[in-house]
Amino acid sequence: MRDCYAEVAGWMAKLGMAVRIDAAGNLRGTYPAEKPDAPILLIGSHLDTVPVAGAYDGVLGVILGLTIAEALDGRKLPFAIEIVGFSEEEGVRFGCPFIGSRALVGRLDHDLLSRQDVAGISIAQAIEDFGLSLSDLPQARLDDKVFSYLEFHIEQGPVLESLSLPLAAVTAIAGQTRMEFTFHGQSNHAGTTPMNLRHDALAGAAEWIANVERAAQQIVGLVATVGKIDARPGATNVIAGEVRVSLDVRHGLDEVRKTAVKDLILLAQEIARKRGLGLTSTENLDQAAVSMNPALVAEIERAISHAGAPPHRMISGAGHDAMIIAEKIPSAMIFLRTPGGVSHHPSESVALEDVEKAIECGMHLLNQLASATAFQEHPHFDRMLQERNSRA
Amino acid sequence: MRDCYAEVAGWMAKLGMAVRIDAAGNLRGTYPAEKPDAPILLIGSHLDTVPVAGAYDGVLGVILGLTIAEALDGRKLPFAIEIVGFSEEEGVRFGCPFIGSRALVGRLDHDLLSRQDVAGISIAQAIEDFGLSLSDLPQARLDDKVFSYLEFHIEQGPVLESLSLPLAAVTAIAGQTRMEFTFHGQSNHAGTTPMNLRHDALAGAAEWIANVERAAQQIVGLVATVGKIDARPGATNVIAGEVRVSLDVRHGLDEVRKTAVKDLILLAQEIARKRGLGLTSTENLDQAAVSMNPALVAEIERAISHAGAPPHRMISGAGHDAMIIAEKIPSAMIFLRTPGGVSHHPSESVALEDVEKAIECGMHLLNQLASATAFQEHPHFDRMLQERNSRA
Repeated sequence: MRDCYAEVAGWMAKLGMAVRIDAAGNLRGTYPAEKPDAPILLIGSHLDTVPVAGAYDGVLGVILGLTIAEALDGRKLPFAIEIVGFSEEEGVRFGCPFIGSRALVGRLDHDLLSRQDVAGISIAQAIEDFGLSLSDLPQARLDDKVFSYLEFHIEQGPVLESLSLPLAAVTAIAGQTRMEFTFHGQSNHAGTTPMNLRHDALAGAAEWIANVERAAQQIVGLVATVGKIDARPGATNVIAGEVRVSLDVRHGLDEVRKTAVKDLILLAQEIARKRGLGLTSTENLDQAAVSMNPALVAEIERAISHAGAPPHRMISGAGHDAMIIAEKIPSAMIFLRTPGGVSHHPSESVALEDVEKAIECGMHLLNQLASATAFQEHPHFDRMLQERNSRA
Repeated sequence: MRDCYAEVAGWMAKLGMAVRIDAAGNLRGTYPAEKPDAPILLIGSHLDTVPVAGAYDGVLGVILGLTIAEALDGRKLPFAIEIVGFSEEEGVRFGCPFIGSRALVGRLDHDLLSRQDVAGISIAQAIEDFGLSLSDLPQARLDDKVFSYLEFHIEQGPVLESLSLPLAAVTAIAGQTRMEFTFHGQSNHAGTTPMNLRHDALAGAAEWIANVERAAQQIVGLVATVGKIDARPGATNVIAGEVRVSLDVRHGLDEVRKTAVKDLILLAQEIARKRGLGLTSTENLDQAAVSMNPALVAEIERAISHAGAPPHRMISGAGHDAMIIAEKIPSAMIFLRTPGGVSHHPSESVALEDVEKAIECGMHLLNQLASATAFQEHPHFDRMLQERNSRA
């Protein structure tokens, strides 16, 4: 991480940016505005990633911010640009994502700071060990002058590729429910128990899994996944007596997600009932959808069009730092097509021409925001600033 | 095992039996006939069991043999009765069942003897370590005068209980196929991959598992079980890219079983094809059904009726020593009702009145076989002896 910071900080310094690492380990560099005390546009993404990852998840968004600042070629805008490289977005070490971005909105509290990694080292301790100081955490917070947050990120899914589109404006980060279901049957001898006298927990779970998929296919924009299954005792010649399965349900609209989850619970209950199985379930996560700022989304769509690509709106099925920052200031994301939808894998990639389109789009967006008209008269942008001020 | 042998051998000796432990570790005691060189009826089951087992699987069959000999109260029959307590029926230590009974039919060969336990100790070594001698193995073989084998055993299934019957005559040991299937899909992000762009290996496997159950329910006497499942990577938020499942199929008729297995393979292929999944499968076991001797089964039915219970015929879904012995001599089994179908568990049980019925049935059977009419004129019994002689 230190090597990464040194490298990126060097690029920032070359662009005349003031560089610092805040108390949560976020790398931040500010490209100045025409005048002092101008509003600030925040652009960024995360610098950490998962083990055995690809080269683009997160870091591409930081580099695109820098590239756009570089493309200004010294030109100053009516607003400053702060580039942020967030730390610990993935949650690999402490099992808790978005640690860096939480610091910007004041949500890196005592409870979170006391979370420990597998070695028993707390986040607070790790911050101090890295040479940062917890007492500086308040200075990591968003400056009052930051009026918007923009995040470029690879899609990490197959949608844009399937539509032959390079870019999309993200309208919301999907809400998410995570549950665990246990079907309780009766473990018995696979040879001596006739089909009609069985209480097969795996057959019951299988019927449910197949139905989860069918139900999700019928609701536009819904994804429902059973990715984890554990059958006990788990022997070829023994009928499964207990099966645990996970459920992950996501949608851009919380009502749709909650209704779908309710239906899938009823479905599991009905299958268990008719088979004489027991059923227990626990909800491990119920995370609301987060809307991106509609005015900013509209500006991004215009910018994508100006860059010569068809505009497209989509929901992000994965969580991103933008979801955290959106709590305080108008935020939006631009997705780049991900070949094969492959991410979190060394073969993760991105097409050079899509990156060029993203830079073009970014430049158009800066110009749109910077234009005197937009800044002073554009109704969307006004609303954006009003919204920002009313939340502050 | 030594304590068990000492105890049971003591009971045998009290009944005037000549007791020995053969080179495969089977405990054998012979209750003499009226005259020397008379035919021999073999009665037995196994003395070993699984870890954390119940008290009746196997050992009840040995004790019932002894109890019947005891009930003769010194009376001699036209044939001797050899009681055998087989060793290593379950295959726990060496992963290979029926080690004891194989020795009686000459199938405990070099390959088998060189199989090792987890500590690297071979069966041959274990035999010597126990104080037995491999060179005595030929003496473990069935005496030429043994004309039939009879095995009492708990059903280990729920059928007799569901029919409110204490006893059944077993007509065959079901044949068995064991396979492993792997569905190969594409592991992807559960949030970013829309339902229509997925190749979900677990959804495919689940569809198949549900269909395996449905297909088996439509074929009388067939049991098909998926008891083992492993989904990879096996995370709540990742679509499964690879799922392995086991398949166990059993039926009393090999044609029915083989046709069913063929259909289940086709079904898996069809599901994989329509979902764009890969499919691989391997067959780990294809064991033919073993018929019990029809004449002996008929005698058992008569004996059950004489004991005042409704006669019932059934297939054994589990393997038993009788399956091995049947290769050489006419064999048959008598099942005792198993409360709740529970076996291989400390709560395994048997009703005292069912054991009484089994003893009554056994006494009637001995009398039927011993009656001069049966021995000399009964056509079934003649055929039995002919069959025995032709196989010898």
